[in-house]
Amino acid sequence: MHLTKYGLPAVLSPVLTPFLASGIPDAKRLIKQCQWLDHNGVGQAIFGTNSEANSMAASQKLHLLDELIKGGINPKHLMPGTGACSIQETVEMTKAAVTLGCAGTLMLPPFYYKDVPDEGLFNFYASVIEQVADSRLKVYVYNIPPVSKVALSLTLLERLVKAFPSTIVGIKDSSGDWSYTESVISCLAPSNFQVYAGSETFLLKTLRSGGVGCISATANINPLAIAQLAKTWQDSNADEQQKALDVVRATFSQYPMIPAMKAAVAYFSQDSLWGHVLPPLVDLSREQTQSLIKGLHKINFAMTGL
Amino acid sequence: MHLTKYGLPAVLSPVLTPFLASGIPDAKRLIKQCQWLDHNGVGQAIFGTNSEANSMAASQKLHLLDELIKGGINPKHLMPGTGACSIQETVEMTKAAVTLGCAGTLMLPPFYYKDVPDEGLFNFYASVIEQVADSRLKVYVYNIPPVSKVALSLTLLERLVKAFPSTIVGIKDSSGDWSYTESVISCLAPSNFQVYAGSETFLLKTLRSGGVGCISATANINPLAIAQLAKTWQDSNADEQQKALDVVRATFSQYPMIPAMKAAVAYFSQDSLWGHVLPPLVDLSREQTQSLIKGLHKINFAMTGL
Repeated sequence: MHLTKYGLPAVLSPVLTPFLASGIPDAKRLIKQCQWLDHNGVGQAIFGTNSEANSMAASQKLHLLDELIKGGINPKHLMPGTGACSIQETVEMTKAAVTLGCAGTLMLPPFYYKDVPDEGLFNFYASVIEQVADSRLKVYVYNIPPVSKVALSLTLLERLVKAFPSTIVGIKDSSGDWSYTESVISCLAPSNFQVYAGSETFLLKTLRSGGVGCISATANINPLAIAQLAKTWQDSNADEQQKALDVVRATFSQYPMIPAMKAAVAYFSQDSLWGHVLPPLVDLSREQTQSLIKGLHKINFAMTGL
Repeated sequence: MHLTKYGLPAVLSPVLTPFLASGIPDAKRLIKQCQWLDHNGVGQAIFGTNSEANSMAASQKLHLLDELIKGGINPKHLMPGTGACSIQETVEMTKAAVTLGCAGTLMLPPFYYKDVPDEGLFNFYASVIEQVADSRLKVYVYNIPPVSKVALSLTLLERLVKAFPSTIVGIKDSSGDWSYTESVISCLAPSNFQVYAGSETFLLKTLRSGGVGCISATANINPLAIAQLAKTWQDSNADEQQKALDVVRATFSQYPMIPAMKAAVAYFSQDSLWGHVLPPLVDLSREQTQSLIKGLHKINFAMTGL
């Protein structure tokens, strides 16, 4: 596995969460999925947007994390999402991740209030870091304004890195705005700030500009090929590899992404329970699933070893 | 106190939450504040947007609610906010509110994912209602797209009322879009759906159109006058009363609303600890506070009996 300066894999998957029919997360199948991803070269950014993390209670996530570690998942390849709207919940989740040896935590800003000043976002992260009070803590801030509707400005990032240089060590940027990503890399990568693209669409561009990799939805279903590009991006066929990744994404992105990826896992693992999301998301319909599978066969896509 | 068909006051305040210097909510001062509001004619929609509810952990809110009831607050005048991003947390908080005898609960839709289909929002509310499984449950849905960035369509409301006619009994509409409010009233008020305006700015218009009252930020600082208009809206001086309410709001709305209201409570109660908000919000600066107080004196505004 290709690792970054801080020991985390260059490619991580915001791991899809399997639920029981009751809506309770299923640790057993999640462990299996994390093992499969690890075997296919990608780390596990559990409790991300694609994991439906915010559709689970804090207590459920704390329990799941415990079960994963007990089940043998390597915490050095884990970057759990720990950011919540409240400082207290963010601290609790982050402390658990650090104590269990997770190599990093991915931290959303508080996302209920909108148009808050940078000062307030800085105070939020600062309070969390001070209350976790653990030198092992490595925070990757999570910028995903299309969903959170709260953007992390470059000025805020600079201030955070300056105040907490050994703790605020990177970002997952899901802004989808390449000019922003590029400005973060050119401004902060020289001080070892690790920039992960939020989609493999930007993987090659990110690596060529000085970023370290990606944390991407499709790493759930196409891990090996994405990890391969992160490893061989200086090879002459890198552009073709990127194009092949884009073809897979284009097939999935015709549908709501999270339900579509779960439908694919359900299909290739022959485990229909995998196909379910929690409200407010909605499962793919039978027609959508059939159309997706047809599209995947058309591009010779398969998930093996699930 | 002027009560609606379901026994709740016509005016409720999304009660400001006092925090200790450590950031922990202070039950003792919150009880005092609820008593003051009740004495001034308004019910208590604790755990709302103005309460910084989402900046507190679920466990803190459960504890606070318990303390309020033990402290003698009348649950018949309480409409706690119980909506969270996860079904499980919403169910837990809602069950606690119902068990403690709260007359209603104010329920945000899940607010992390955006652009979700109505189907997903319907499934969320339906799952919560089915899991709470208590005929005493009265849900007021909370529409606040300027903050949550998730709007409750009229079609969704109609579907919810049809499916759960004795449970989905009303709405707090903070859309700020009068044409939407009006359409909800004209469509659903005939089936006894209780429409509360989300701001006292719309109080008179709402009552004249067939709504029942308001749940408004400024009910925290101007309760008596707002409650008075709700009671006497058919009197000849109603328009003047509304204008007087608007003058008070105009003074506060020159500043970030929540910190400004807390600064006013701190000033009039001579309890500086009241002036603090939790990140990501930011306290008013000293200059802002001085300017606010000056503005309040200019309009002869005071809070008495705090």
